[in-house]
Amino acid sequence: MKSYTEYFWFNTQKRIEYIRITDKVREVVKKSGIKEGFALVSAMHITAGVFVNDNESGFLNDLDEMLERLAPMNAHYHHHHTGEDNGYAHLRNILVHHQVIVPVTNGDLDLGPWQEIFYAEFDGQRRKRLIVKVIGE
Amino acid sequence: MKSYTEYFWFNTQKRIEYIRITDKVREVVKKSGIKEGFALVSAMHITAGVFVNDNESGFLNDLDEMLERLAPMNAHYHHHHTGEDNGYAHLRNILVHHQVIVPVTNGDLDLGPWQEIFYAEFDGQRRKRLIVKVIGE
Amino acid sequence: MKSYTEYFWFNTQKRIEYIRITDKVREVVKKSGIKEGFALVSAMHITAGVFVNDNESGFLNDLDEMLERLAPMNAHYHHHHTGEDNGYAHLRNILVHHQVIVPVTNGDLDLGPWQEIFYAEFDGQRRKRLIVKVIGE
Repeated sequence: MKSYTEYFWFNTQKRIEYIRITDKVREVVKKSGIKEGFALVSAMHITAGVFVNDNESGFLNDLDEMLERLAPMNAHYHHHHTGEDNGYAHLRNILVHHQVIVPVTNGDLDLGPWQEIFYAEFDGQRRKRLIVKVIGE
Repeated sequence: MKSYTEYFWFNTQKRIEYIRITDKVREVVKKSGIKEGFALVSAMHITAGVFVNDNESGFLNDLDEMLERLAPMNAHYHHHHTGEDNGYAHLRNILVHHQVIVPVTNGDLDLGPWQEIFYAEFDGQRRKRLIVKVIGE
Repeated sequence: MKSYTEYFWFNTQKRIEYIRITDKVREVVKKSGIKEGFALVSAMHITAGVFVNDNESGFLNDLDEMLERLAPMNAHYHHHHTGEDNGYAHLRNILVHHQVIVPVTNGDLDLGPWQEIFYAEFDGQRRKRLIVKVIGE
């Protein structure tokens, strides 16, 4: 079994951003030399997420609006008693989930026709990290 | 390390369907010959999901009603400006998540008493694909 | 490739509890002797979840309140026609997701600064089980 690990750093301009990272993940898989296995793509912060969906700006707006409905940015959160103001971002991390596994087949990401990998920044404008770890052979 | 991959196709009669696939996934694991490892079960479309829960029709109705509350089929979505009408299905893919990992122990799915694997079709009536990839030894 | 599996049992005092299990998972990884790989942490019941987030009581309250909004304990659920009264717990299992993969690097959990692993009991006061399975080398 082989394994290969890389970390990506993000520092977004806006507080909330959805960033397509499919090509960066593919590059890590190519570098790993792994032909058959799993690539884990996982946020290392508790106010960010990772998901697979459509690279279409309308959908990304819809996602943002749904998350604002389910976990509004300006609600009163118990978490804010710590001095933080990002309670919504913790909840969105839970709803979106912070990781995906991408199957690796024949040395490439085994994704369907419209599947793109996104890093979801829910509380940015500071340095945050993501791990890509590939295992297989 | 060994790996083994199969793809399933679905073409549902209704637009939304929840299909139990535990036995099909178990068969793939048996064919793989893998005794200890992970089976990834992952939708290859952005309007479908995969989950593990109860094979009980009342629960499946409850899930359907919750998803209709959180991401209604007939709401106005930005995504529909592309000509699509499946914005709700993209959002449900995010909420339900599009994949699970089933642990493989002693050559079989290592599931708890009531755990069943489901493919969740949110925008069917056309051919859609799912990957089952097993790695281990 | 190596693999190592342990099961944890929980029997919570309250019906709903969020229990930090980072140290227990780390111990399993140490025992496995695996240096590079994945640790799957997965609930074996359909009314429990596993998530990674902040060990901060305010956030845990916020999560609880959001889940009560999205899947209220005392709503009418179809699932209750079976005689059960835990429909909300099935839905929360879906929303929170029942598993995470923790990357293992240099023989330890490869977690970010505030990431802690939690077992989310949604219908406790009885014995329930979780699997931790590590694969790698």
